[in-house]
Amino acid sequence: MKKSDYLRRYSMSDRIASEKLRSKLMSADEAAQFVNHGDKVGFSGFTGAGYPKALPTAIANRAKEAHGAGNDYAIDLFTGASTAPDCDGVLAEADAIRWRMPYASDPIMRNKINSGSMGYSDIHLSHSGQQVEEGFFGQLNVAVIEITRITEEGYIIPSSSVGNNVEWLNAAEKVILEVNSWQSEDLEGMHDIWSVPALPNRIAVPINKPGDRIGKTYIEFDTDKVVAVVETNTADRNAPFKPVDDISKKIAGNFLDFLESEVAAGRLSYDGYIMQSGVGNVPNAVMAGLLESKFENIQAYTEVIQDGMVDLIDAGKMTVASATSFSLSPEYAEKMNNEAKRYRESIILRPQQISNHPEVIRRVGLIATNGLIEADIYGNVNSTNVSGSRVMNGIGGSGDFTRNGYISSFITPSEAKGGAISAIVPFASHIDHTEHDVMVVISEYGYADLRGLAPRERVAKMIGLAHPDYRPLLEEYYARATSGDNKYMQTPHDLATAFDFHINLAKNGSMKA
Amino acid sequence: MKKSDYLRRYSMSDRIASEKLRSKLMSADEAAQFVNHGDKVGFSGFTGAGYPKALPTAIANRAKEAHGAGNDYAIDLFTGASTAPDCDGVLAEADAIRWRMPYASDPIMRNKINSGSMGYSDIHLSHSGQQVEEGFFGQLNVAVIEITRITEEGYIIPSSSVGNNVEWLNAAEKVILEVNSWQSEDLEGMHDIWSVPALPNRIAVPINKPGDRIGKTYIEFDTDKVVAVVETNTADRNAPFKPVDDISKKIAGNFLDFLESEVAAGRLSYDGYIMQSGVGNVPNAVMAGLLESKFENIQAYTEVIQDGMVDLIDAGKMTVASATSFSLSPEYAEKMNNEAKRYRESIILRPQQISNHPEVIRRVGLIATNGLIEADIYGNVNSTNVSGSRVMNGIGGSGDFTRNGYISSFITPSEAKGGAISAIVPFASHIDHTEHDVMVVISEYGYADLRGLAPRERVAKMIGLAHPDYRPLLEEYYARATSGDNKYMQTPHDLATAFDFHINLAKNGSMKA
Repeated sequence: MKKSDYLRRYSMSDRIASEKLRSKLMSADEAAQFVNHGDKVGFSGFTGAGYPKALPTAIANRAKEAHGAGNDYAIDLFTGASTAPDCDGVLAEADAIRWRMPYASDPIMRNKINSGSMGYSDIHLSHSGQQVEEGFFGQLNVAVIEITRITEEGYIIPSSSVGNNVEWLNAAEKVILEVNSWQSEDLEGMHDIWSVPALPNRIAVPINKPGDRIGKTYIEFDTDKVVAVVETNTADRNAPFKPVDDISKKIAGNFLDFLESEVAAGRLSYDGYIMQSGVGNVPNAVMAGLLESKFENIQAYTEVIQDGMVDLIDAGKMTVASATSFSLSPEYAEKMNNEAKRYRESIILRPQQISNHPEVIRRVGLIATNGLIEADIYGNVNSTNVSGSRVMNGIGGSGDFTRNGYISSFITPSEAKGGAISAIVPFASHIDHTEHDVMVVISEYGYADLRGLAPRERVAKMIGLAHPDYRPLLEEYYARATSGDNKYMQTPHDLATAFDFHINLAKNGSMKA
Repeated sequence: MKKSDYLRRYSMSDRIASEKLRSKLMSADEAAQFVNHGDKVGFSGFTGAGYPKALPTAIANRAKEAHGAGNDYAIDLFTGASTAPDCDGVLAEADAIRWRMPYASDPIMRNKINSGSMGYSDIHLSHSGQQVEEGFFGQLNVAVIEITRITEEGYIIPSSSVGNNVEWLNAAEKVILEVNSWQSEDLEGMHDIWSVPALPNRIAVPINKPGDRIGKTYIEFDTDKVVAVVETNTADRNAPFKPVDDISKKIAGNFLDFLESEVAAGRLSYDGYIMQSGVGNVPNAVMAGLLESKFENIQAYTEVIQDGMVDLIDAGKMTVASATSFSLSPEYAEKMNNEAKRYRESIILRPQQISNHPEVIRRVGLIATNGLIEADIYGNVNSTNVSGSRVMNGIGGSGDFTRNGYISSFITPSEAKGGAISAIVPFASHIDHTEHDVMVVISEYGYADLRGLAPRERVAKMIGLAHPDYRPLLEEYYARATSGDNKYMQTPHDLATAFDFHINLAKNGSMKA
């Protein structure tokens, strides 16, 4: 009996109710034969949740075989955002990717990108799906989408992320589905699938509040395009968070002080603060701080649900969290899987084009809070390229939320690498968020509220966020920028020494030297 | 008889039908007494259209008197965008402004800003009104708004721009109206006044197509706040365009080639191209080119109506133009005043929060086309600060349209100042539009389509836009950026020489030297 016949007969689960699609059951290696050299391939997956678990390795093996035989094999890879070592990692390691969009964080892939052996377009997450629909990258050949189950009608229930799944399913010529039994069937009902009609027929996104449900709980698409269905039973890659450290606690405290000052100014209420938050240890510390705060009925309109939001929901402090994906520790992912039925009352997973839509972000009036690599003394923010050249991850959704949020804030420790790197620099070596978009920057030394200030009025506030070791160096720079031949005072700079911090770092291993 | 009594009796026009507001008629000097030192003052006005004609000089005179007597006198000035010499100019000249937002282009004011004697916050035009409503700048004390007429009910008909008038009228404690008889009464019916309700009650902007009318033709506000009504009969400041030169013609030709290539790729139709265009001689050349092109039923969803759009309407090539203001030559302004009744069939003037709203811009699917100061080899764009420090005008609406347009494009001559300045540089000395937002750049040497390209794949295309004199210098930079210790290939840079073009310019008067 052929392996695929065997699989069709002895399927691991009863999660494929459609006879038509059940007939497409096969192994990942068999399914990988539909993915050819030069193909443009759209994967599900967003921050380590809901990415395909079997096809990446099978495609990587095809690439290795081809390369071993002296043949070319590389695909262009489109996803929701980052995935995991068993997805981006194995493919990068096998040199199976020519070009990648819109976001990547895998260390092996990062090295390939920075060595120049792989192309990478770093794109706003809310733009990524629409630009494929608009044909900016040519025809998508294959979509590989992880799902929780297939209904009798052939509708599919997404798994732990939605990402660009709808866009890839609509755009691709061929579809491969991965039905992952590890994902809880109780996720059904948590998703809210609604798409903006294609140009020129776009209409308003009918969301006024983070908790508004506007769509279906499943994805409907042309099932004639399905060439393979593969079964898996594999956990999402879930990284544990570090315990909250002292610096993170101080940053969280300063962030809460900032929120309190907004309440005092009448611009925010203790009731109903709407949050967007980037992922990481500092944001998690902020959420721990909120647990103890006076803020009630918090809502999240954000990209990913992280541990701290689950705690806020459990504590009754957060009423609803809308996102496109989970980004949970292994412990919390297990809890989510076990209690999805309860959590789907207060958690909504949407397509990333909706979770990150400028229109909805502006309408709900959220406070955006993201991390950064460095900010300069005028409030320009580098989120992506270390010393201007080495990409770390990508802009992700930070631009969608920073530009369109009610208030945009950035949180960062003042230093990295044991003090060798300052987060506050004279001139940001790459700029992802401009002085027009950055309102508040927060470090363990306080917060700088830049609203209503001319650029030169921001300088003292920004320098106040730096580690005391760096403050005299920054002050010296500003003194140079405002003296000698540097006579223009809107955004004073001394271009000859603007990158001295970065040049020192490259030469001597520290921005100080 | 007091001057104000005289005015009430012998009013120049019958444009003030409300008895209540007619009773507030007075001279500009009398009205200026309501504008005190330290006040935050919101003016009407957008690119030289619809700004107050009398109060600026009257306020400037108050400032001069106060300064002459050794007293402080300065206001914070909020507008729609730029105004004119008899508004921004006279106030700057009198040192009557402490701080200004969101845009300025007056030469005298520019000098004050760059000398450091005046503060300037350069803000996205779509953000400016909402940020005042949200209280980011404190209480607005006075609004000074030019209008065409006042109805019996006290409703006001805007003049040649709408700008932030609604926001200022709502936010200010006191209101001064300038009724300008120069403005055609036939403008009535051209405006479409609709506002997004304040947070937390925002709703979708119900515009799906550029020509959709959703509001009223007048502004309704609390007339109890009116402290003065002043009559004027003064033309808008209208600058003539230069005749289309050879370079502009070539740029326009390359822009049209780009549009043709989009048609060939199936991403654009000859029928119904939706345009946004910055103001200036090159955009005007583009519109002259469109007159002769195959494109039909063009629509504009843009900030300002300029001469070229009027020609397109007259030629039957443009069906509708939606904007917040006129920016016409004197000749075209006169034509508009005479024939407003006809033009109001195809021209709509909206609040700038709506003309520039991210939500609507993204929904209608327009092609954004703006100018620039410089772009770097990776496609980052500087729109505001010459050599990083000297502000030229401001970001205006270019960010609103660039981020949210279907396609974002920039048009520029390859050189300025007779070849001393290159528009293509190794590292942009100020960044207003990031590599994530810039899709197509066009000079007289061709167009660079950056979509789908990793940063290092963009370099050759961007260098191809530069003047041939600068190409070897740019290639030398890229060679340095990819050799020696510069080993990171995502966005290769040689930070030690990244600003050499600008440093040369400051030292030797040319970027080449």
